[in-house]
Amino acid sequence: MRNGDAAGNEAAAGGGVAGRDRPEENRMVARVSFQTDPSRYRHWRLAIEGPVATLAMDVAEDGGLGEGYELKLNSYDLGVDIELYDAVQRLRFEQPAVKAVVITSGKDKVFCAGANIRMLAQSSHPWKVNFCKFTNETRNGVEDATEHSGQTYIAALNGTASGGGYELALACEHILLIDDRSSAVSLPELPLLGVLPGTGGLTRVTDKRGVRRDLADYFATKAEGIGGKRAVQWKLVDEAIPRVQWQQTVSERAVTAAHASCRLSGSGPGVALTELRKSRTDDAITYTYVSAALDRGRGVAEITVRAPDPTDPTSPTAPASPTGLTINDVHALGDRFWTLAVTRELDDLILDLRTNELEIGTWVFRTQGDPGTVLAYDDLLLDNAATDWLANEIVLYFKRTLKRLDVTSRSLIALIEPGSCFAGSLLELALAADRSYMLSGVFEDVDPDAAPATITVAAMNTGPLPMGNGLTRLATRFLGDQAALAAVEKRAAERLDAEDAERLGLVTFAPDDIDWADEVRIAVEERASFSPDALTGLEANYRFAGPETMETKIFGRLTAWQNWIFTRPNAAGPDGALRAYGTGKRAEFDRKRV
Amino acid sequence: MRNGDAAGNEAAAGGGVAGRDRPEENRMVARVSFQTDPSRYRHWRLAIEGPVATLAMDVAEDGGLGEGYELKLNSYDLGVDIELYDAVQRLRFEQPAVKAVVITSGKDKVFCAGANIRMLAQSSHPWKVNFCKFTNETRNGVEDATEHSGQTYIAALNGTASGGGYELALACEHILLIDDRSSAVSLPELPLLGVLPGTGGLTRVTDKRGVRRDLADYFATKAEGIGGKRAVQWKLVDEAIPRVQWQQTVSERAVTAAHASCRLSGSGPGVALTELRKSRTDDAITYTYVSAALDRGRGVAEITVRAPDPTDPTSPTAPASPTGLTINDVHALGDRFWTLAVTRELDDLILDLRTNELEIGTWVFRTQGDPGTVLAYDDLLLDNAATDWLANEIVLYFKRTLKRLDVTSRSLIALIEPGSCFAGSLLELALAADRSYMLSGVFEDVDPDAAPATITVAAMNTGPLPMGNGLTRLATRFLGDQAALAAVEKRAAERLDAEDAERLGLVTFAPDDIDWADEVRIAVEERASFSPDALTGLEANYRFAGPETMETKIFGRLTAWQNWIFTRPNAAGPDGALRAYGTGKRAEFDRKRV
Repeated sequence: MRNGDAAGNEAAAGGGVAGRDRPEENRMVARVSFQTDPSRYRHWRLAIEGPVATLAMDVAEDGGLGEGYELKLNSYDLGVDIELYDAVQRLRFEQPAVKAVVITSGKDKVFCAGANIRMLAQSSHPWKVNFCKFTNETRNGVEDATEHSGQTYIAALNGTASGGGYELALACEHILLIDDRSSAVSLPELPLLGVLPGTGGLTRVTDKRGVRRDLADYFATKAEGIGGKRAVQWKLVDEAIPRVQWQQTVSERAVTAAHASCRLSGSGPGVALTELRKSRTDDAITYTYVSAALDRGRGVAEITVRAPDPTDPTSPTAPASPTGLTINDVHALGDRFWTLAVTRELDDLILDLRTNELEIGTWVFRTQGDPGTVLAYDDLLLDNAATDWLANEIVLYFKRTLKRLDVTSRSLIALIEPGSCFAGSLLELALAADRSYMLSGVFEDVDPDAAPATITVAAMNTGPLPMGNGLTRLATRFLGDQAALAAVEKRAAERLDAEDAERLGLVTFAPDDIDWADEVRIAVEERASFSPDALTGLEANYRFAGPETMETKIFGRLTAWQNWIFTRPNAAGPDGALRAYGTGKRAEFDRKRV
Repeated sequence: MRNGDAAGNEAAAGGGVAGRDRPEENRMVARVSFQTDPSRYRHWRLAIEGPVATLAMDVAEDGGLGEGYELKLNSYDLGVDIELYDAVQRLRFEQPAVKAVVITSGKDKVFCAGANIRMLAQSSHPWKVNFCKFTNETRNGVEDATEHSGQTYIAALNGTASGGGYELALACEHILLIDDRSSAVSLPELPLLGVLPGTGGLTRVTDKRGVRRDLADYFATKAEGIGGKRAVQWKLVDEAIPRVQWQQTVSERAVTAAHASCRLSGSGPGVALTELRKSRTDDAITYTYVSAALDRGRGVAEITVRAPDPTDPTSPTAPASPTGLTINDVHALGDRFWTLAVTRELDDLILDLRTNELEIGTWVFRTQGDPGTVLAYDDLLLDNAATDWLANEIVLYFKRTLKRLDVTSRSLIALIEPGSCFAGSLLELALAADRSYMLSGVFEDVDPDAAPATITVAAMNTGPLPMGNGLTRLATRFLGDQAALAAVEKRAAERLDAEDAERLGLVTFAPDDIDWADEVRIAVEERASFSPDALTGLEANYRFAGPETMETKIFGRLTAWQNWIFTRPNAAGPDGALRAYGTGKRAEFDRKRV
């Protein structure tokens, strides 16, 4: 699990670190794996009773992902959050009968002390940023489960919830705090550490819970936090419950939430999320439908996403083409069903590359297969997503995975070539990209008889897969140009060639065979020549044209300020607050306001 | 104008630098003054012909505010932007007949090369951030004039507009580019300097002009930019006009805009913005109605804003109480009219403190005077703002000044004491504050017979002074709590005492005489003990609860990312792109993506 189990194939090393050391990352990493399962959890206990699941945080002090810190008082590091992410995912897929989830602590008198400070203090800047991003995504996943899966999360704070601990509670629909004169909620980051409550804290307090901004200001400067009735009055929590009524009240709230749940029914029991079939070397990551070739020299990952091949009898998705499949077959196939399988693979690949391959700055996406197959899978899901829990979950998971791509600080380029299947759900990969190139015609030298590439706009592109800003990628793309959007929607279901796609504004450029190699090469090489930081800022702005939501505010406004603060000597310098905490030394501040 | 004219009273030193040197600010500053007038402009020429004003940028190469750089190719520094700000303000107040403003270049073949790179490279981090903030505010002022004053800005790009030059054009309603095979618009910040087009560029391209995000991505990586028809097709400009038709087309567009203008009429000619009566020492800044005592030890500016005193016959606003005044009197009083005078003073004070007093981290606001007087001034303006250009301009100017406060990286605390007049327009100061304290009762030792403080919600608080997020400060305060907002609005016009104000949620705390001194002292001292950077991030998040607009996205998402990039070695380090530019050296990048 930790540095001990260095293994060539990290799939075996759940929620842990494997492979070569990278000392520049401050003892935090070798290679992190995001794969785990409840049998390997060290920090969470999952119990299910009828429609209510209880997820109890009980962090193993010696279970840190890196060395040099102890996870006291239910403080967490990335490894703890990887298990939480896994649990939230599994509840959705493996426990269809669960309609409410209580998050509580397995320890006495403390719910969660937030992110481990020593871990943060010793982490490199990229590690801190990546860690916060993943934590944010997991909290958004908790909200997504509540809103769209009918698994309502309730925070049962049986002790003090500080910093990231309270931020986890904020992601829940209802917050119960034990009223025992000592337990409180707090955001002590600013007074103690000189950083922000950066995993949603500042945004959710005002925008979700409606805490008045001046009270929120006071709260975020009061390290010991606020408990009892005042926490309720200020809307920091929903209820403060005396210890004698605690268990019963938590239980009642969970049952009430379960009763009110919009969880869809559907055939079959849960779908087991079995171990991913993944091979990982320094140069390649290979799953069943997704693969990535890592070119460290150019700083590029060449990613290919495949549709099932109807002609391949060994395809693990049987039948390879979904024509004639029913929703019952989807349940029977479980995690072998193509869309679920490919989504899990993409999700894992994004996390792997994002965390372990910082110098691979450009991700080039290709697809391979029959567009009709992709559209048939899409249709099967969308036909059932309103009534069947599993179809709904698969679509939601694909949505979240695309959102993960949107907030990934890598340049994304889609290459649309003959033999590709950028249709419906997979077209979203091209729409999520910063740029797309579509070959006009064919590669004359390679396969002059190939059918030219097409792209297809379909139902998946016009609603079920919104970005964090609440708009579809198409609507964001054509922001303020309703006519262009309407023109595209009018051509839905058509197989559009490169000229049409370019004219409709669906691809950036459509070079022909003669220009293709040079244009694509220059685009990729140029990207590698630019400042990685400036690219991150550019993409973080352009990808979110239009309205902002609480979710995009967390990734935009809040995260950007936090990242700035993380680079400042007042936090991360040798005398900064983050480094000084716990040493007995007082932080030395440059008092200039910027 | 430059370091030469060091003068004790900087009011004499227009748009320049005066006072003691501060070598830590990289040769950029002594003390900057924001006061200037057209007779002192070195970089802009203003010409007026009927309803059309032309503002020609013709930057004096040797006219930089600091030393060590030349303002070649119409590149700009803060001094150039101070003149632009002055011109935009004066057009609104001094030129009521102007209904369209053409911004163009006085130089041949170049419109504007953007912010001066050498200036940026040698600037400290706070200077860069402050400079960009003021530049952003001026560009927002251009948009505000177009939208609300009926002075429509047209960018006539008679040569290449690069970086900040194009960003200035983006703030205009209509962009004309000369079509001469060499002139282009460009955002070369990322490829050349490793930073962002951070004064609105990335936001306005997509959100205002509707440039598709992938085309915008390509555009922002192509240093030489895009001109001609392609610039029009991509919506980067509105028209590309051949040289032979240039003058006539620009003139036609200006006349058309003037005809379509919503500029209000009203009596009288323009109102001259005469030199502010300001005295400035190291410890105090004093105007007619506004004063600030600077306590460097505590890092606090104690700011007092006064209503006119009806009992003072020397009051420059005659009559001191507006009862019985008509809109004609407002015109006759001109910039002696209280609201205009106090707004100019506040505006100048904010800019002065923000730029020159970086270590004064907390601004404490008090008001002094009769609430009835403030409300009478407010009523006079609001009764006429829909029909009279001057009343409209004064309200808009107060709105912009409050917005400047909202984006100021200083902690704002309002103290509401007996003798204060936090009513209507001045109540906004308390609502803009991060926290407010209102004395319950009176100071028994000081003046036991004083009338306890009151605050009054009035029409100014419920519409005409929106924040950048499009909501009033009240609506932002009570986000998601319609009932609380309604309860407050129901009490409009009432003089609310401390208990009522606290109960209604209009003030943060209402301590009595016994607790007051300690509570206020602790709040202020505590603020000075926290990390200044973390406070900046905290306030930048809490002040903008709720929806985001293009304006708040520029100050939130875009600016925060830019500030982060400004701190990163890839831009600002010895081998960073910003420092390497023009030296012949290639920037050395840490290739890790964060």
